Amino acid sequence: MAVRGPLLKDELDIVIPTIRDLAFLEQWRPYLSPYHLIIVQDGDPTKKIHVPEGYDYELYNRNDINRILGPKASCISFKDSACRCFGFMMSKKKYIFTIDDDCWVAKDPSGHEINALEQHITNLLSPSTPFFFNTLYDPYRAGADFVRGYPFSMREGVATAISHGLWLNVPDYDAPTQLVKPSEKNTRFVDAVMTIPKGTLFPMCGMNLAFDREMIGAAMYFGLMGDGQPIGRYDDMWAGWCCKVICDHLGFGVKTGLPYIHHSKASNPFVNLKKEYKGIFWQEEIIPFFQQVVLPKEAVTVEQCYIELAKQVGEKLNGLDPYFTKLSEAMVTWIDAWTEITAALKEGKPISNGVAKSSR
Amino acid sequence: MAVRGPLLKDELDIVIPTIRDLAFLEQWRPYLSPYHLIIVQDGDPTKKIHVPEGYDYELYNRNDINRILGPKASCISFKDSACRCFGFMMSKKKYIFTIDDDCWVAKDPSGHEINALEQHITNLLSPSTPFFFNTLYDPYRAGADFVRGYPFSMREGVATAISHGLWLNVPDYDAPTQLVKPSEKNTRFVDAVMTIPKGTLFPMCGMNLAFDREMIGAAMYFGLMGDGQPIGRYDDMWAGWCCKVICDHLGFGVKTGLPYIHHSKASNPFVNLKKEYKGIFWQEEIIPFFQQVVLPKEAVTVEQCYIELAKQVGEKLNGLDPYFTKLSEAMVTWIDAWTEITAALKEGKPISNGVAKSSR
Repeated sequence: MAVRGPLLKDELDIVIPTIRDLAFLEQWRPYLSPYHLIIVQDGDPTKKIHVPEGYDYELYNRNDINRILGPKASCISFKDSACRCFGFMMSKKKYIFTIDDDCWVAKDPSGHEINALEQHITNLLSPSTPFFFNTLYDPYRAGADFVRGYPFSMREGVATAISHGLWLNVPDYDAPTQLVKPSEKNTRFVDAVMTIPKGTLFPMCGMNLAFDREMIGAAMYFGLMGDGQPIGRYDDMWAGWCCKVICDHLGFGVKTGLPYIHHSKASNPFVNLKKEYKGIFWQEEIIPFFQQVVLPKEAVTVEQCYIELAKQVGEKLNGLDPYFTKLSEAMVTWIDAWTEITAALKEGKPISNGVAKSSR
Repeated sequence: MAVRGPLLKDELDIVIPTIRDLAFLEQWRPYLSPYHLIIVQDGDPTKKIHVPEGYDYELYNRNDINRILGPKASCISFKDSACRCFGFMMSKKKYIFTIDDDCWVAKDPSGHEINALEQHITNLLSPSTPFFFNTLYDPYRAGADFVRGYPFSMREGVATAISHGLWLNVPDYDAPTQLVKPSEKNTRFVDAVMTIPKGTLFPMCGMNLAFDREMIGAAMYFGLMGDGQPIGRYDDMWAGWCCKVICDHLGFGVKTGLPYIHHSKASNPFVNLKKEYKGIFWQEEIIPFFQQVVLPKEAVTVEQCYIELAKQVGEKLNGLDPYFTKLSEAMVTWIDAWTEITAALKEGKPISNGVAKSSR
């Protein structure tokens, strides 16, 4: 393949939530250093986070979040990677790639390093096929196509809003599965990208995820998790359920599969169990709720869909726990903040002054 | 892996439609020779089909079909591989594997021959997960599981009715795609099995297909194709659409992916275009019909579902072409014949006397 410059260099931000130094970026340097980083520092704001030389970044800690959002900062989680969505809000770019700081460059079966971001961009820039299943997977990949029997009227596909990548080595298991299979590793490299069909929900993991911020960003809210909240580790799941029903309603595509990253270490299953246990039984009612949710035809923007979804969460899940009333309100606050910040950034107001930094 | 005997040896028949000698079975000998074959000879019934030594088989030609089914033989296509469904009807076994005579043993990326039948059996004997998407593909495979966020109440899955295998080398393209990409080969080995979600239709190819005959056999009717009919090459598609809506209604699973076979040669695209062209534009209305079809709660057996589907085909697709009225009637005839033959075979009536043969 011909050598080419980094794809979408000026149209994509990389969002990283972290509580520690970002040494993992050393390994990613060939792939990520041309891009701008938005680092959301979780936990103690006085701690100094070291970013490797040569990266261009802006960094927000809790004090920045509080200062920028004022009372609306209540919708941004603390002491949970859910805080990453603040970075989505602060971006001025069309595309976002978000990655966890325990994710490393994976290798394909032939031993070559995988440029995860490049594959995400390929996924986002090629259409999705949510209305009919193609048995040879992504029909837009080189060497593949639509198989016999695939309706021609559906072959243009729809625009792709989300690219969900996977993980080699430590799989993304819940605490009970971690406890039962403490040493299971994912070693199977599945060379496929596919569209998740319309009407089908999936467990979206935030570890290795890219999306079109203009298309779906307003719904990429990671909920209320962590400090002061009854659950954790459901931030990305919540965002995934909300995004998928909105993508289905608006006719956007969601892809999953390639690229893989190498996930280095499993988090502590006992700590995870404590964070997850309410979610584990709540999801038995939350998922049927999302499977049945109907958005009104009048909801034609992501923001309108999200406000409607917030309303239905407040009405239909509040019986499960008062938490869902609070979450419903936070969803509305998120949209208010998203709308305000987006407008301010568009007008070039100096909202993020004082936090833009660079290690270059 | 420990050496073991052939799986389900006495519970599975292999159905092969053909117009020529079955030399391809030589290569399959290590994998298929322990099983009983049902050969459906298409075309000229006076032609003698050679079956390699050592295979146990029964063979039916058009004269046999006419003799056994009498006037109901009208539902079995002639001069089209759709005739294979007669073999499904004559089987006394729980499982069917059907394969085309231009399909050869494929190799995995490490160069090992793939035992396609063994993989189909694995697929059929493990559950499916049609209600929620698992991003690490089949959670029942060794080294895989349900990922974080997968509802625990759905982890038992449902019984699998259909295992749809894929093709390396010549992909299953329609005539227009064959014409546009005459030399495209499928070289991508995707190491995955997955459930096709509930509510999603797929293009089912009959080249490399296994199913649970007791669960779904009555819906595995390949329609009216070929001689005297306005279309061909939509036999397996028709069966796939019907089976999928019935599986969704009854809560059965459909898997696709592994195993691969090696598909040796593309059929003539000009001939194919002639067979397909009506199907290519009819499918633009047929697929929305199947996407919207609702089967009544009272339909609790495959036969009941199929009769209801036949009725709706007659009512809703007849505007497209008078062919669909004929097809609707043939669907009912098929169920009548299926019911009669199945009952007769259960009672041990000598229906197939005079055609049972063996090359052993």
